Amino acid sequence: MKSLPADTYVDGVRAGDRAVLARAITLVESEHPRHAALAQEVLTRLLPSTGRSRRVGISGVPGVGKSTFIDALGMHLVGHGHQVAVLAIDPSSSVSGGSILGDKTRMSRLAREPAAYIRPSPSSGTLGGVARKTRETLLLCEAAGFDVVLVETVGVGQSETVVADLVDFYLVLMLAGAGDELQGIKRGILEVADMVAINKADGDNKLAAAQARSQYRAALHLMRPGAEPVVTTCSAMEGTGIDLLWDSVESVIAQREASGALAQRRTQQQVGWMWAMVNDGLRAALRAHPDVAALVPCLEQDVREGRATPTSAALQVLGAFLPRTQA
Amino acid sequence: MKSLPADTYVDGVRAGDRAVLARAITLVESEHPRHAALAQEVLTRLLPSTGRSRRVGISGVPGVGKSTFIDALGMHLVGHGHQVAVLAIDPSSSVSGGSILGDKTRMSRLAREPAAYIRPSPSSGTLGGVARKTRETLLLCEAAGFDVVLVETVGVGQSETVVADLVDFYLVLMLAGAGDELQGIKRGILEVADMVAINKADGDNKLAAAQARSQYRAALHLMRPGAEPVVTTCSAMEGTGIDLLWDSVESVIAQREASGALAQRRTQQQVGWMWAMVNDGLRAALRAHPDVAALVPCLEQDVREGRATPTSAALQVLGAFLPRTQA
Repeated sequence: MKSLPADTYVDGVRAGDRAVLARAITLVESEHPRHAALAQEVLTRLLPSTGRSRRVGISGVPGVGKSTFIDALGMHLVGHGHQVAVLAIDPSSSVSGGSILGDKTRMSRLAREPAAYIRPSPSSGTLGGVARKTRETLLLCEAAGFDVVLVETVGVGQSETVVADLVDFYLVLMLAGAGDELQGIKRGILEVADMVAINKADGDNKLAAAQARSQYRAALHLMRPGAEPVVTTCSAMEGTGIDLLWDSVESVIAQREASGALAQRRTQQQVGWMWAMVNDGLRAALRAHPDVAALVPCLEQDVREGRATPTSAALQVLGAFLPRTQA
Repeated sequence: MKSLPADTYVDGVRAGDRAVLARAITLVESEHPRHAALAQEVLTRLLPSTGRSRRVGISGVPGVGKSTFIDALGMHLVGHGHQVAVLAIDPSSSVSGGSILGDKTRMSRLAREPAAYIRPSPSSGTLGGVARKTRETLLLCEAAGFDVVLVETVGVGQSETVVADLVDFYLVLMLAGAGDELQGIKRGILEVADMVAINKADGDNKLAAAQARSQYRAALHLMRPGAEPVVTTCSAMEGTGIDLLWDSVESVIAQREASGALAQRRTQQQVGWMWAMVNDGLRAALRAHPDVAALVPCLEQDVREGRATPTSAALQVLGAFLPRTQA
C-alpha cells in the first residue's frame, strides 16, 4: 500500500470523504512498521474530532439473526437522520479469511444506504491486534462524522469482552427457548450487557418471546440487583420493536451522559486500552525471546507433570527474559 | 525468621507435624529473597505428596454466615474422619492487618479440633502475591495429610476469581431476599460457581429460602444451560442441610475424577498459575522501571484528556522498558 501525506488523511477524514476514510482505515490496519508512526500521527491529530458518536456493541450467537437485526436497526437510524458505521470484531477471520458471505451481502439494505458505512473485521493478527484496529477505526469513523457506530462481534469467545471495553452500551441478542445455544456465548456476557433483546418475536414465536422476556427479567434481577439491563423483544425480520429498542438505548446513554458516567467510562476505557496494549506488547516480546521460547515447553511440561512448582517455573521464565537488574 | 534446613521442613510436613507445617507456611509466605529458593526447594520435594485433597472454595457476601458455615461444615467433615485445613484469601488484610476477630474466634468449635487446621490469610502483598502464598500453603497442607482444604474468600473483589482458579469446586453462599447485597460479590461469580447454597434456611426464613432456591435454579438454568450448578439450602446455625450439601460436593467431584475432568482442570490451573506469576512479575518489573515510572503519569494524563492515542502511549511505555532488540 502506498500511503498518502498525513494532511491528506486528516483533511479527507474530517471532510467525510469515504475514499480517504477507507484508506485511513487500511493505514491503521497495516502491520507494517513504516505505517505505524504515520497512523498514530493521523489519529492524534484527529482525536479532537472524535468521541461524538453513540458506540453500541452487539453480540449474539449464530442463528440469532444478528445481520438482519443490524440491517433493520441501521435502516431505522438512517431513516432518522443518523450516519451509521458498522464495524465487526472477528478474530477468526484471520484464519478463515473472512466470512463466507461478505458483510455487504449480510446487510443488503444498509449496504446501499449512502448514510451508512459497513467495514468488515480486520482480517489479521491476534485478538489484541484486531481490537486495536477496531478501536482506531471507530475513532476514524467518528472523525468522519458518523454519529452512531455499531460494533458487532462475529466470532465467539474472548471478543465479547473486548467489545464491552470498547463501547458505551452493550446489546446482547437472544432467542426464546434456545437455552442450549447460549453456551456459545462467553460466560459473563450477561453480566456486562446493558440490554438483552429477544429477537424473532414474530408469528408463532411471539408468546415464547414474551415468556423469555419475563424469565430473563427475573433472572437478571437476581444476578444484577440494582443494575438490571433492559430486557425487550423485537423482530428484526418484521422490523417491529426496533424503534422502542433504540429509544431505550438513547435514553440509557443520555442518562449516563447527564450523570457523567459516560465520560468516566470512556476515560477508563482509554487508559485501559493503553495498558492492554502494554500487556499485549510485553507478552509478545516475552514469547518472541529466544531463551524464553527454548525454556517454555520443558517448563510447562514439568509443571503439568508435577516436577516443578508454578512459582519456580515462572521465576525461570522471568530470569531468562528480564535483565538481572529488572528481574 | 530463622529458617530450618530443607530436610527438616520436608520430613516434618510429610509427618504431619503442625509446628513444622506452620513454619513451612511462614517460609513460603516470606517476601525475603533469601527464603524464596529454600521455599521452592521444599515445595518441589513435597510435590509428589500433594494433590490428594478435595479443594473447595467458599465465597459469600458479609452477613451470609460464612464463618458459622465453615465451622459447621468443618465439624461435619471432622466427624466423618476427614482432616480439614481452612485457608483464607483476603487481599485487604495487608491494609487492615487482619480481621477484627481472629479466625479462631470466628470458627470456635473447629479451632479446638485436633483434626482441623485454620490458617489466616497471608497479610501482605498484592492479590497476585496473596494468591501465590495461598496456593503454596494449600500444597503444604496436602503434603501434611489434610484431605479436605477449604479456601475462603474474605475480601470482596478480585479474590473470588483467584479462588476459582485454585480449587476443584466452588461453593457460593447466598441469602434469601438479600438481592441487593449480591452486588458486593464480583460479577461473574455465579458463572463459575459449582454450587449455590442458600444459608439461614431456618425458622421464619425457611419458606423464603426454598423460594430463593427455585428462583436461583430457574435463573441459573437460563444463564448456564447444561452446566447448571447445584442449588441447595442449609442452616449453618442449626447444622441442617450440611450433610446433603457435602454429599453433593463429593458426588460432583467424584464424577469429575472419573471422567478425567478433575485432573485436566488441575493441570490447566497449574500452567495457568505459572503464567499468572510470569505476568505479575512482568508487570512488577515494568512498574519498577525508573524510565517507565517517570513516563506513566504524563502519558496516562494525555490519554485521559485526548491528547494522545492509547496506542502511541503504549508504544512509548514499551519502548522505555524493553531494550531496542525486544520492543
